Amino acid sequence: MVLKDIDSLLALVQDDMEHVEQMLMSCIDTPVEVLNDICRHILGSGGKRIRPLILLLTARFCGYRGSDHIPLACVLEYIHTATLLHDDVIDHAEMRRGSSSAHRLWGNQSTILAGDYFFSRAFSLAVGVGNVRILDVIAHAAQCLAEAETFQVAKTGDPLTTEQDYFYIIENKTASLIEAAARCSAILSGQDHTRELLLADYGRNLGIAFQIIDDVLDYQASEKDLGKTIGKDLQEGCMTLPLIAALARGSEEEKAMVVGLMNSRQWQPQDIAAVRDFIEKYQGTAYAVACARERINAGLAALASFDTTGPKAALGDLARYVMNRTS
Amino acid sequence: MVLKDIDSLLALVQDDMEHVEQMLMSCIDTPVEVLNDICRHILGSGGKRIRPLILLLTARFCGYRGSDHIPLACVLEYIHTATLLHDDVIDHAEMRRGSSSAHRLWGNQSTILAGDYFFSRAFSLAVGVGNVRILDVIAHAAQCLAEAETFQVAKTGDPLTTEQDYFYIIENKTASLIEAAARCSAILSGQDHTRELLLADYGRNLGIAFQIIDDVLDYQASEKDLGKTIGKDLQEGCMTLPLIAALARGSEEEKAMVVGLMNSRQWQPQDIAAVRDFIEKYQGTAYAVACARERINAGLAALASFDTTGPKAALGDLARYVMNRTS
Repeated sequence: MVLKDIDSLLALVQDDMEHVEQMLMSCIDTPVEVLNDICRHILGSGGKRIRPLILLLTARFCGYRGSDHIPLACVLEYIHTATLLHDDVIDHAEMRRGSSSAHRLWGNQSTILAGDYFFSRAFSLAVGVGNVRILDVIAHAAQCLAEAETFQVAKTGDPLTTEQDYFYIIENKTASLIEAAARCSAILSGQDHTRELLLADYGRNLGIAFQIIDDVLDYQASEKDLGKTIGKDLQEGCMTLPLIAALARGSEEEKAMVVGLMNSRQWQPQDIAAVRDFIEKYQGTAYAVACARERINAGLAALASFDTTGPKAALGDLARYVMNRTS
Repeated sequence: MVLKDIDSLLALVQDDMEHVEQMLMSCIDTPVEVLNDICRHILGSGGKRIRPLILLLTARFCGYRGSDHIPLACVLEYIHTATLLHDDVIDHAEMRRGSSSAHRLWGNQSTILAGDYFFSRAFSLAVGVGNVRILDVIAHAAQCLAEAETFQVAKTGDPLTTEQDYFYIIENKTASLIEAAARCSAILSGQDHTRELLLADYGRNLGIAFQIIDDVLDYQASEKDLGKTIGKDLQEGCMTLPLIAALARGSEEEKAMVVGLMNSRQWQPQDIAAVRDFIEKYQGTAYAVACARERINAGLAALASFDTTGPKAALGDLARYVMNRTS
């Protein structure tokens, strides 16, 4: 089965996801109108809700029958949204999910503060669940996220960024929240420590694969598919796995060409095309896809030993979706 | 007793404050060197630690004998520091506490992320204390803070800002964390609900007075005292109580003069002097100081009924310090 869109997975947890969507919006209810506007704009601009989805699917997988997975799914989406808002300011993004970015509409100041609001709202909602272990998981993930994003900024435009640097960044920036999603489900449903670690392992590997594929798509997808500019990572000096892999294999002349372009920071369409050709020559995207597949296999292996009352196939489908998505 | 500096209060809780200082620094230990640098720079640049101080003094007042007040004092300072870092980006501040601001030294991107790191580190440290009620107080305060800061940005440069707007802003921006400090002490030391509310009331009133005096000092203090530019609020379009009070009393011509200057956003030294003269003509600062004094009295009244094993005078001294400080 090649799963290219997320709809069949969403259908599995449709009721839960509807509750999440309602709660995402209804919990944004501040006395400050502009804050409500910014928050609802970004929430309403069509994210994939991949973090909530993973939490809902893993909770189902674990046979969880309570209702705390709904607010926790919102918590993860809020933290993710906070980082999107801050990223928009950091990257000077013009577009986000195919709409004008918040900082274009409301300015940097309110956008930064709306991010802070999402962080604090997330923690407040998480506190409501009243489980200190879950709070610890979430706070730790948020901390890893901020660390990795700062490291990523420090590495921006650095052609010497290594594969190790890259994996540190994506493991802590993207995978940390997805790992937290799976771990929250394990804790909610009272799994023992070993199973909690296995579910966390699944989430972390899935998250790493998700980000690798995201970075591959940045070089491949059409503008329509992703709702964002192509080669955006490159233009922002963001070194991702396809390029890092190609640089490790290219000639000195080719490396000098890429370094020169990165240092000039003046990207013309032909420059981006040249880097894409260079990446393809050394099979940079194929290498990245292979790394993603390895992570997916590791993630699925972590689940192999589970007896589950919930739908085991769904987490496999999710893994396949992560590998095969085109946007 | 006219208490003009904070040293005698700090002396009362010197041991605790030394632990707080150690923990503030030792908890910043990330694998990302630049993040450690930014965090330690801002922590090391000599803040007054007013929020930790209030938590330590109220904990002492409540006769608290445990050790959880130390990490919680750090939590409040971290949240405050996070907002300072984001404020620096928002205000384009050149200086902070007499040193170059973080965004001048490390750029906006890393400064925003360092703020996010402080937020997440704060929550992570608070979770370690393991008290869900305290977590709720802290998350709620952080949420109020983000709401009020967004409202303040929306009101920037608006000469129609009312006294009610102003009090909403300072109650939620400044007083929320100071109220949280006092409330955490009450919860830690197992006070009953009434006493918790009374301590919260003390903290909130103290926080409001603290911010009013801060805003008065912005028009009065010398550059050396505050380590920041004089009339900075005005130049940033920030409407504070002395000006709001004067505008409510001034003639139409005078109002038009102030509105014209605020709209032009080109502040010359003589413009700032003109606004200061206008404020003094209508006793705007005297009015603000009277409002602060009212709050201080309300705060002290909230404590009047307490039998305490701790030093009751210290919280009175703290209130007097807030009123009489010159920087």
